[in-house]
Parts: sequence; structure tokens; C-alpha cells
Amino acid sequence: MTGAFSLLTDGTVTSARGFKAGAVAAGIKPSGKTDLGMLVSEQVCVAAATFTQNSFPAGPVLVSRERVKARGRAQAIVFNSGNANACNGERGLADAREMTSIAGVLLGLEPELVLVASTGVIGQTLPMAKIRDGLARVTVRADGGAEAVQGIMTTDTRPKTSGASLEVDGREVRIGAMTKGVGMIHPNMATMLAFLATDAALEPAFAAAVVKRVVDRSFNMVTVDGDTSTNDSCFLLANGMAGAPALAQGTPAAERFEAALEAVCVELARAMASDGEGATKLIQVDVTGARTLEDARAVARSVVRSSLVKAAVHGEDPNWGRVFAAAGNSGAEVDYRRAALWLGSVQIARDGVGLGVPREEGRFQMTGPEVQLRVDLGLGSAEARAWGCDLTEAYVVENSAYTT
Amino acid sequence: MTGAFSLLTDGTVTSARGFKAGAVAAGIKPSGKTDLGMLVSEQVCVAAATFTQNSFPAGPVLVSRERVKARGRAQAIVFNSGNANACNGERGLADAREMTSIAGVLLGLEPELVLVASTGVIGQTLPMAKIRDGLARVTVRADGGAEAVQGIMTTDTRPKTSGASLEVDGREVRIGAMTKGVGMIHPNMATMLAFLATDAALEPAFAAAVVKRVVDRSFNMVTVDGDTSTNDSCFLLANGMAGAPALAQGTPAAERFEAALEAVCVELARAMASDGEGATKLIQVDVTGARTLEDARAVARSVVRSSLVKAAVHGEDPNWGRVFAAAGNSGAEVDYRRAALWLGSVQIARDGVGLGVPREEGRFQMTGPEVQLRVDLGLGSAEARAWGCDLTEAYVVENSAYTT
Repeated sequence: MTGAFSLLTDGTVTSARGFKAGAVAAGIKPSGKTDLGMLVSEQVCVAAATFTQNSFPAGPVLVSRERVKARGRAQAIVFNSGNANACNGERGLADAREMTSIAGVLLGLEPELVLVASTGVIGQTLPMAKIRDGLARVTVRADGGAEAVQGIMTTDTRPKTSGASLEVDGREVRIGAMTKGVGMIHPNMATMLAFLATDAALEPAFAAAVVKRVVDRSFNMVTVDGDTSTNDSCFLLANGMAGAPALAQGTPAAERFEAALEAVCVELARAMASDGEGATKLIQVDVTGARTLEDARAVARSVVRSSLVKAAVHGEDPNWGRVFAAAGNSGAEVDYRRAALWLGSVQIARDGVGLGVPREEGRFQMTGPEVQLRVDLGLGSAEARAWGCDLTEAYVVENSAYTT
Repeated sequence: MTGAFSLLTDGTVTSARGFKAGAVAAGIKPSGKTDLGMLVSEQVCVAAATFTQNSFPAGPVLVSRERVKARGRAQAIVFNSGNANACNGERGLADAREMTSIAGVLLGLEPELVLVASTGVIGQTLPMAKIRDGLARVTVRADGGAEAVQGIMTTDTRPKTSGASLEVDGREVRIGAMTKGVGMIHPNMATMLAFLATDAALEPAFAAAVVKRVVDRSFNMVTVDGDTSTNDSCFLLANGMAGAPALAQGTPAAERFEAALEAVCVELARAMASDGEGATKLIQVDVTGARTLEDARAVARSVVRSSLVKAAVHGEDPNWGRVFAAAGNSGAEVDYRRAALWLGSVQIARDGVGLGVPREEGRFQMTGPEVQLRVDLGLGSAEARAWGCDLTEAYVVENSAYTT
């Protein structure tokens, strides 16, 4: 291992030392699939997190946010799918706290060290009897990552796990991760949950800063339908069990760790986008030449969330005017006389005007499973990248009868 | 006629005195349908307008905006569908100006008194030879409103016209109107065009203010897919030929005129929403109890544009959590502990918590051609109303192969 990092080919949330996980089918999901589990560390972790900005935060979001903020320490996460425990008022808060109490008793931890995440239908109270019975049957194991991810899946067609390895001061440090749902795809499925577990030792301030920066460049740049859920949560737990010195902001080792964590999160973000409901194509949008980073991010997200762009990608239709129209609709500073556009490797427009590329040549850039768009705004040097997926008939079918 | 106003049952853009219009099939649309026309007044009009906020304004938007701003007077509008003349750079500007010159020669007006609007595919230059030939064949008539609206239709399945009548100082004043496309539905179809023609006399400052206010409460509250086009334009022409005194801000007659104009525009806005691409249901969202008008508008638009809400309405699925999630995602001030929700006439949630309404009871409120949602934020007294439509498989089919 050198100064860089490597992605693990079979990384899961238990890839780092001292983390165990497991999940069971508790009967929360009508399908009878796995829907309840726990992740636990052998030692107390530095904990950092980001949560949904939605004004209707779910009970588990309120409980976890308060605990991360008050302590910055945690040792376990209890989680369920099939029910978001959102819009349930005081009852929802009490149920979320009770989930942490049950997990605490079973794991031998004080409840305050347990975080909680739920995903599923909004506005139905949790079946607490099933959760109590189910949690008692969960066995956490050092190789339980592949089982645990089943417990957070909703409309995901594939489990999404990742991991990375790097060297810090002669020690191997690992990151393991799992995620579910596509960011902002499905509010009543509680959208995006991500659990990042590392055996690195992290200074608390660095942990809080790094999770925010990395999420901004990965999960926050994924959009499927532009909605943001009541339950989005991303947790980072660092237990230090690799035995390497604590990483602090501004050191070369911290930068390597951040790069590795970003690579893990980008891999998961791309997996989420390409597994969007009904998706057949991954869309990657690069914006360059923006005046500010905020502008670059706004344009990238506006393009990737445009229903018209998404439908055009589905039809392999090089209808590039829709990309400019979406960019112009982003609220960012855009000068239509300076914008350029690439579809795959082919430049389609310059100075806001089409170059007359033959339709078939444009279409050829859209035939694969990944379509790449680049908009250069010609105004500055800021850039951003976003991911999404095409809009298909299957998306509509899936979402018009979800609670049925 | 009393102090109020009445909507005309057969109103068109030529319902007011002194307005003539006509349209022909010039061969711009591959389908061979009507695609080019003119609206003209016998006398010079006070002109006011609102235009797209998109950063990629089309050539005709730039030309018309400049003329309305410089003079505040106009006498005709030349228009085409099938080609938006957007993203065409200097060539697009020159072509838009030439359209007004041709119309000016044919109508005997100086070109500066002619406004221009285009709608259709983005990024293709106008076929000017067809436009020259076609305009020479247009006959404007006092009963030409029904023919003229055909010239601005794109994916519209029905023509959209309206009109109203009111009394001002003993004289009958009329408003005629036509519109096309669904606001923000289809950027490459140039989305929303609206022409409002009245024989009222309007003080220029009142004309400019009233068109902005009315558009904000009607067309700007319609959303089909959240995109905003390069070509959106709404023109108000007032020729004063009813012989009534000029209306100025703050008078009772001006208030009546504004109410009539709003009723016309709301009727057209609802027609646009219910004719959204692939739509089977009109959605009306009322937001009450917001702290500010901006908040009320933001929440109403966020709900009506949510793909998840739209898909749920399509499936007649009373999945109310999606409505709160969309409200919470609006950027407006929302307190999840105070929000209440009605589906049709049934209250579904209070203080952010579901009331346990049986699913079939909720579903029954969604079975008709119009679904009404109301969110009360419990924070203040501001309110707003927005319109949209359901998201259907047909929308995806239509938009995934549009330029093909």
C-alpha cells in the first residue's frame, strides 16, 4: 500500500475492525423480507452525521440528531425498513427512543450511545411488538455486513455496499459502508440512509467536517425525482481500532482518508442513481466554468433533475435544448452567450448556439448504460458533478400505487 | 351587467372590439398543422408583458421584451409554433426581428409596434422562406380568434381560449384571451404563451402592474414538470376602443377589471394544467396559514410539482405523507408540529400527525377528474393556490421521443 488508497472489491459496513452487524425479518414489511437490524462497534466511536433538511423530520432523525449533537459519540445504530416512523408526532419520538433502549439492553450499551434510522411508509406508527421480538433475534457478526444491508433496503433492486483501505502511519485503516434507496427518490420510503464505519481514529471536529464535505460531493449530488425525504440520514462512526493516530484536519493522512471516504461515497452514490426506481440509464452531469461552487452545484442538480432531460435520456434523444433550458432554470448565474455543451465526447453547442451535430452522432453517445453530459458556463473555474437516472414508464407505475 | 364581471362562454382573443386574428399552416410543423399567425388591433395599444426568467431567453423573447420596455405600446403580435427559435444566437435575434418586419409590411405598421412569440423545438433555426410565404397568406378577421389559437398549439390536445365582460362607466369592456401549452411543461416546446387583448383603456403603469400580479396568481402557479421554458411570454394589449375612461391603479373599476382578468387567466391556467402532457387529473393545491405570501406560494408549488404526489394522484393513492414531505422540501417556513392536511373535504392530518382516516375514505376523494389538496401551515394568514396534473406513463412516452 502506498500513499493513496484502494477500494475494496467486497467492502461492507463490517469491513473495518471491531464492527459487527446483523438483520432479521421482523414482519414490518408486508413482503416478509429482512427489515430490522443493528450495527455495533466493540468500542465507543466518534460519531458525526448529516440529516435531511426537510421540515418534517422523522422521529428517528430527531433522536439521532440530538444525540450526535450532544455527545459526538455513539457505539451502535438500530435500523428498520418498511416504516419510516415519520409524521407520527410524540408517539413517533417515543417509539424511536424505545428502539434505542431495546437495542441498548440487547447490546449491553447505554441507550444514549445508540442511534436510530427508519425508512418506509410515512404516517403509520411502528409495530413495536414486532420490533421488540425481532431485535431479540438479531445476531451481530463481524461478517454480518452483507446481511445487515438487507435490513435497510426498500425499493432497491440491489444491495449497495462499499469499502476502502489506506495506510496511516504504518497501520492499515479501513472504511466500510452501506446505503439504501436513491437520494431524494422516494420520501415515503425515507429515501437515503448511509452508514459509514471506519477503524480510523478521527478528531471529532475533523469527523464532523469530513462527513459534511464528502456527503455534499456524493449523496447530496444524487437526485432521482427531486424530492427530499423526511428520513435522510448519513452516519459516520470511527472506532479507532486500527491503532493509527487520530486524524486531524489539514494533515496529509487526513486528506488521504477524506479521498478514500469520498471514493466510497461516490461509488455508493452512483450505485443509488443507477438503481433509481425504474431506471435503465445512469446520467452523470459535469458542470465546469461556473463563477462559484454553489452555482456549479445548482446547475448540475437542475440538469440531472429535469424531467425533460431524464425522459430524453430514456429515449436516447439528443434533444440538447432541454439541457440548456434546465441550466437556465437553476437560479445560478448563467450567460446564454457563453455556455457550451458536450454529450459524451461530442461538443453539441458553443456560445449558447448549436453546432449542427448530426442527430445520429448525438444519439450514439446515449446508447450505453451511462450517459455523460457536460455544461461549461464560461464564467469562472468552479465545477461540480451530479448523478441521476432516466425517467421511465416503470417509475410512474411503481409510484402510482406504492402504498396499495 | 352589474358591478361585477361575467366570463364569456365563447371568449377568444378577438372577443374585444377592434382585434383581428388569423393563422395558416406554413409548413413549420412536420405534421402540416396550423403553425403561423398574427393578432392585430385597429388602434395602437398600451402593451405590458411578463417573460420567462430562464437564463436562455429565446430570440423572440429578447426582441419583444426590448420593445415592450422601450415603448409600452404595440399594435400586433406575430407568432409561430413548431420552432422556438431558441439557442440560435445572433441568427435567432435577426430572424425574430425579420418576422416583425414582414408582419409590419403586411399589416401596414412600423415593425417596432409588432411583438413576436415562438414555440417549438429548441436549437433549430427558423425556416424563414416558409414564414415569409405563410404570413402573406394569413387573413386577420374579427372572428379569427378560434383559428388563431391553432397557430400556437404544440402538444395541446385542446385549444385554450377565454374571455370576460364588465361594465366601466356605462360602457361594456371586454377581455379576450388565448394560451397554449402548459406553463413549465415542455421547454423545448417553448411552454407557455398567453395573449390577453382588451378594449379597455389602461394607464400604462396599471397595465404593467396588473399583468404581473395576475400572472403571478394564475400562469405562474401552474406546473406540470417543474421546468421553465426559454420562451414563456404573456402579452397584454389594451386598445381603449370600448370608449371607457382609462383605468388607473386603486379605483373600483380597475379592481373589477383586475378581477375579470384574473378570472380569465385562472380559467386558462386550469385548462393548461388539466391538459398537461399525459394528464388524466387536474390537481389543485391550496396552502393556507403561511407566514408570508412567498411561503404560501413556495409550498403550493412544491406540492404540485412533486413527482411523488403527482404519481400518487394518478394511482388514486391517498399517500398523504408525500404531501407533507413535499411541503417540508419547499424552502418555506414550515413547522411539522403545526401542519394540517385535507384531501378533498376530508381532514387527513393535524399537528403534523395522521388522524387515521381509513384508506378507502381518502381514496374516494381522489376518484374524480379533479383532486383538491389543502395544507394549512398554522403559522399565519397568507395563502396561495397552485394547479398541476398527475404524472402518467403517457407523459414519459411522449417526452422520451419528442424530437424523433
